[in-house]
Amino acid sequence: MSDPSDPSPPPGKSHGRLSVRASLTPRDLMEEPRIVRGAWTAKVITLFPEAFPGTLGLSLTGKALDFGLWRLDTIDLRPFGVGKHLNVDDTPAGGGAGMVLRPDVVDAALAAAAEGTPKDRSRWPVIYLSPRGKPFDQATARRLAQADGITLLCGRFEGVDQRVIDHHQIEEISLGDFILTGGEIAAIALIDATVRLIPRVLGNQASTEEESFSEGLLEFPQYTRPTDWQGRAIPEVLQSGHHANIATWRKTMAERLTKERRPDLWRAYCAAHGRDPNEDQEL
Amino acid sequence: MSDPSDPSPPPGKSHGRLSVRASLTPRDLMEEPRIVRGAWTAKVITLFPEAFPGTLGLSLTGKALDFGLWRLDTIDLRPFGVGKHLNVDDTPAGGGAGMVLRPDVVDAALAAAAEGTPKDRSRWPVIYLSPRGKPFDQATARRLAQADGITLLCGRFEGVDQRVIDHHQIEEISLGDFILTGGEIAAIALIDATVRLIPRVLGNQASTEEESFSEGLLEFPQYTRPTDWQGRAIPEVLQSGHHANIATWRKTMAERLTKERRPDLWRAYCAAHGRDPNEDQEL
Repeated sequence: MSDPSDPSPPPGKSHGRLSVRASLTPRDLMEEPRIVRGAWTAKVITLFPEAFPGTLGLSLTGKALDFGLWRLDTIDLRPFGVGKHLNVDDTPAGGGAGMVLRPDVVDAALAAAAEGTPKDRSRWPVIYLSPRGKPFDQATARRLAQADGITLLCGRFEGVDQRVIDHHQIEEISLGDFILTGGEIAAIALIDATVRLIPRVLGNQASTEEESFSEGLLEFPQYTRPTDWQGRAIPEVLQSGHHANIATWRKTMAERLTKERRPDLWRAYCAAHGRDPNEDQEL
Repeated sequence: MSDPSDPSPPPGKSHGRLSVRASLTPRDLMEEPRIVRGAWTAKVITLFPEAFPGTLGLSLTGKALDFGLWRLDTIDLRPFGVGKHLNVDDTPAGGGAGMVLRPDVVDAALAAAAEGTPKDRSRWPVIYLSPRGKPFDQATARRLAQADGITLLCGRFEGVDQRVIDHHQIEEISLGDFILTGGEIAAIALIDATVRLIPRVLGNQASTEEESFSEGLLEFPQYTRPTDWQGRAIPEVLQSGHHANIATWRKTMAERLTKERRPDLWRAYCAAHGRDPNEDQEL
């Protein structure tokens, strides 16, 4: 994880994603390579490198990228293809629609991505974005943000040959129970959710702490000016200036909303807090 | 829904997203406006119109956009802001970090987006992308693909004033249990998953039908050339040419994978198919 107190200046390049490789200073040839003073890095293996940084280049994630608080290294899968036409895929064994990414091609791209990264998967997770994976959630984002970096393999077509997933024991993560045309959008979402947890990326660190999921509840309703709008007023308690009452109201609303909308999250929250999920709430 | 047998040519513009408005031919002033021969349209209210089409402009969704099979209409929230600085947000009532989008500003943008669209929400869903919403899934993608189009409101900061959500009875949809810096990435994912279900967007319609979630199971493992790779062979049955055996093997693998990885999906699948979720599977 990058050290938030690290006094070294951001790299001189105008754009973090243009920095090709983090500098290595191995102390011992027997040790795994280590990235010293290196920013958190996402390496993305994709057939559409032009999809990046995409939305990640805007707003807070984009500013943090420019500032060198994290790095993005796209690895084009195409040059690893085989034959005159650099084929990366072939028809599925056993028949069926679509195309499957070849294991040898993916293997070569993974080897290139692995250069200069620690072999310890807890320090550098290697992830295949697939609807068959474990659903991505905030806890996973926190885990990934605490690593030195990640390698993401974006699927296309009907997927990736199972043997290369097994061979490298690649972790499979799903963005949700829906099908995307490719893994690139899932990669961008995963990186966005992760990068914003890296120290200093969000200007106001308090923002992340108050948000939904940090404590397993949906967020309470928010209000702002104008005080009266279309005959609807801001709830009185929020205008009272009474901080304890406001905190209680928000907590109660967050719990009520979670109970109504997401019984699954509500049961998990109650189990974690020794609460009865069927208790009546008052306000 | 656009008629797949519609013989009218795609619009002459070089890029579908540049077509500002679908043509209207109201038969009766008392009737709701209708979009005739109109392609499925996503209207996106955002502070970052430059995030679009983003990844949606690439690959199959990009080709379909160029071809006029769907349309993308971004609505910049900024010009609807108030005061000299066109402010769109203000501090949260009751205090706290971050900023909340003003109800009057969002209301004005929604009114602009509603122009020329049917009021019937089943024909034109209006959606706020928020972690507090119903989790997005393939069934929702199918529902949205069958509408004439959708309006998406992308949140930023701490969210949107609750009153404008209540006032317009806006549907809230969440991409998953994680926090993104803004709704734009969620909008892109939602549109991608929806657009690929629109007739003719995917070259090979069979692809969608075989995939995961279409029948509530995770997808079976895929293999392709080379037949032997790193001492790992493609499973024999897939090379047998025996179609019935291949289909049985794939179904069994899909069920086994679902049972192992996603007990929640497995229970739902068993309930829908009158199966015992604890039965032993053989292969």
